[in-house]
Amino acid sequence: MTGGRFKGKVKIVGAGLIGTSIGLALSKQGVSVYLEDLSPATQRLASEYGAGEEFFEGVNPDLVIVCVPPEVTARLVKAELQRHIQATVIDVSSVKSPILDELAAEGADLTRYLGTHPMAGRERGGAVSGRADIFIGRPWVIAINSECSVERVNDVEAMILDLGAQPIRMSAKEHDRAVALVSHVPQVVSSLLAARLVGASGVELAGQGLRDTTRIAASDPKLWVQILGANASEVEQVLVSFRDDLDTVIDALGNISGQGSLMALDRLIGNGNRGVEQLPGKHGSRKSDYQTFIVMIDDRPGELARLFAEVGEIGINIEDMKLEHSPGAQIGLVELSIAPKSADRLQAELLERGWRFAG
Amino acid sequence: MTGGRFKGKVKIVGAGLIGTSIGLALSKQGVSVYLEDLSPATQRLASEYGAGEEFFEGVNPDLVIVCVPPEVTARLVKAELQRHIQATVIDVSSVKSPILDELAAEGADLTRYLGTHPMAGRERGGAVSGRADIFIGRPWVIAINSECSVERVNDVEAMILDLGAQPIRMSAKEHDRAVALVSHVPQVVSSLLAARLVGASGVELAGQGLRDTTRIAASDPKLWVQILGANASEVEQVLVSFRDDLDTVIDALGNISGQGSLMALDRLIGNGNRGVEQLPGKHGSRKSDYQTFIVMIDDRPGELARLFAEVGEIGINIEDMKLEHSPGAQIGLVELSIAPKSADRLQAELLERGWRFAG
Repeated sequence: MTGGRFKGKVKIVGAGLIGTSIGLALSKQGVSVYLEDLSPATQRLASEYGAGEEFFEGVNPDLVIVCVPPEVTARLVKAELQRHIQATVIDVSSVKSPILDELAAEGADLTRYLGTHPMAGRERGGAVSGRADIFIGRPWVIAINSECSVERVNDVEAMILDLGAQPIRMSAKEHDRAVALVSHVPQVVSSLLAARLVGASGVELAGQGLRDTTRIAASDPKLWVQILGANASEVEQVLVSFRDDLDTVIDALGNISGQGSLMALDRLIGNGNRGVEQLPGKHGSRKSDYQTFIVMIDDRPGELARLFAEVGEIGINIEDMKLEHSPGAQIGLVELSIAPKSADRLQAELLERGWRFAG
Repeated sequence: MTGGRFKGKVKIVGAGLIGTSIGLALSKQGVSVYLEDLSPATQRLASEYGAGEEFFEGVNPDLVIVCVPPEVTARLVKAELQRHIQATVIDVSSVKSPILDELAAEGADLTRYLGTHPMAGRERGGAVSGRADIFIGRPWVIAINSECSVERVNDVEAMILDLGAQPIRMSAKEHDRAVALVSHVPQVVSSLLAARLVGASGVELAGQGLRDTTRIAASDPKLWVQILGANASEVEQVLVSFRDDLDTVIDALGNISGQGSLMALDRLIGNGNRGVEQLPGKHGSRKSDYQTFIVMIDDRPGELARLFAEVGEIGINIEDMKLEHSPGAQIGLVELSIAPKSADRLQAELLERGWRFAG
């Protein structure tokens, strides 16, 4: 008996962060989960964590979830399709077309295969142990494969919904193009930007803008070489367009007094403005739906608590927030994003309570 | 009688965000401030705000601070040097060499001029009114000009310290190179990246990484055209190096199975890792000095307050924090950065109090 929509026995191959997390979440709902990992120690550890039983021969799973590094995913999906001849087999790796192509080329049974991709914070290296909640509220792509039966797709979708994620159906190609744009190219660009700082002087003048643009440049090289390698051509296409625009900017800067150069710079920043407006905000709303302002706080324990306690008393929800660094100072700047209808009232009430604002 | 280090009469030319903020801060300390703006209405408004008296003929300031847009700064500095023949005249615009060069070419009295640049959150458009506190803890560059007397430089430094900022002396050239790297190039790169989103599909898969890298792409085009135009050659140089690295990445992706392509990608991400480590953290410490973990909270008023109240009770200081979006979910993810010596204890105590963590 399970508490969720999905009914059936699940086998998870690969007990890393994602596999263990799925196992924990499904086990919590009463689903029978069986774990298999190349490393017997990892397999046993994940089982002891509560992610499921250790797999043994004779178990016939309804669903097999392959959670292994991108470069070995297709091989293991094919093996599982052959071992469990009635099961649906899915994978969770971050690039979808190459796996589908490889399976098709090898004559695997595509009527039972489905590629998927949970968009859960994978860039957080070091989080060795999985958590049942990492999928909550995150998109989880189902890469539509027309050979797979409707029942199997619906079953997989039910499992995704049970984990609290948002299933989004698109083709493998559409997925790979989308993640190139929203994830892989930002990674490359952030790394390229951060690389400029190596050995440079004047970095002590850096502010929050540079911090934000380079945060993901701290990501794990080993994982990213695999991801970029697997999605090379989609990433390349976006980067080539990026370079075309960059060339225009470099030309304008190189001939700054020439005709049209300032217009080119204006177009650059203007297009950036429009691009940012495309981003979904919290709960699917647009970024520009919020008003932001900055509160100054003393930099000691309890000050943030006092601020949020008072915001709570006032009864207004904070949509987004960010703590800014103030190098050398004992002052913190907290940027709050608030629904427009409440922003003025919150600011007025905080002012009355003695909080100070920064411009 | 003034309460700060700086003694003397100050005239501020240009009552925008920076001029008004300086006026407010100096007036608070008892300095006599006189405001002048091309617009009589703006001049009067700033005065009514408390940023100083309206300027009138006959006042002989010891220090004139020119706070006008970059493109008219040199002209107004020169005019003020001529109007007040004993005063020190400084400006606050974000690019320094072109102004110094223009003044030298026009034969202005450089023994009384000093270029400066407060690194205060100028990208926040819309903050029409100034605040006395925006300089606290921020770097404020003094662009050394060898013709200016030591006494005048020391006076300006005293004024900067009075405003709570951190004076940093460097040459105009060093300054312009540094801000190209830490501010102007990140702006261009962020805008170029965000521009890729215009009209693109799949943006609903975007996560925090894309949000962070494109946040500053929402900046004001009018201001940035002036800044990039004034620092064109320094920005161009950094962008050309950026493009060289980008070409290498595009080549590797275009020939992904070729010799050395994965090594090129590994080098890219690795160099990005090293670059991020150069960034100063809060209080001048390095980013990598903190440990981060993610707490899950229900998305309703009071929950953040409860979290910070309990962190306060535990008595541990939060070095940095970030609220993550969870599109569609009623769950918020709060990333906390904590000094390593306290991180384990905080996590253990929060766990005991029933808080949940995300991987």
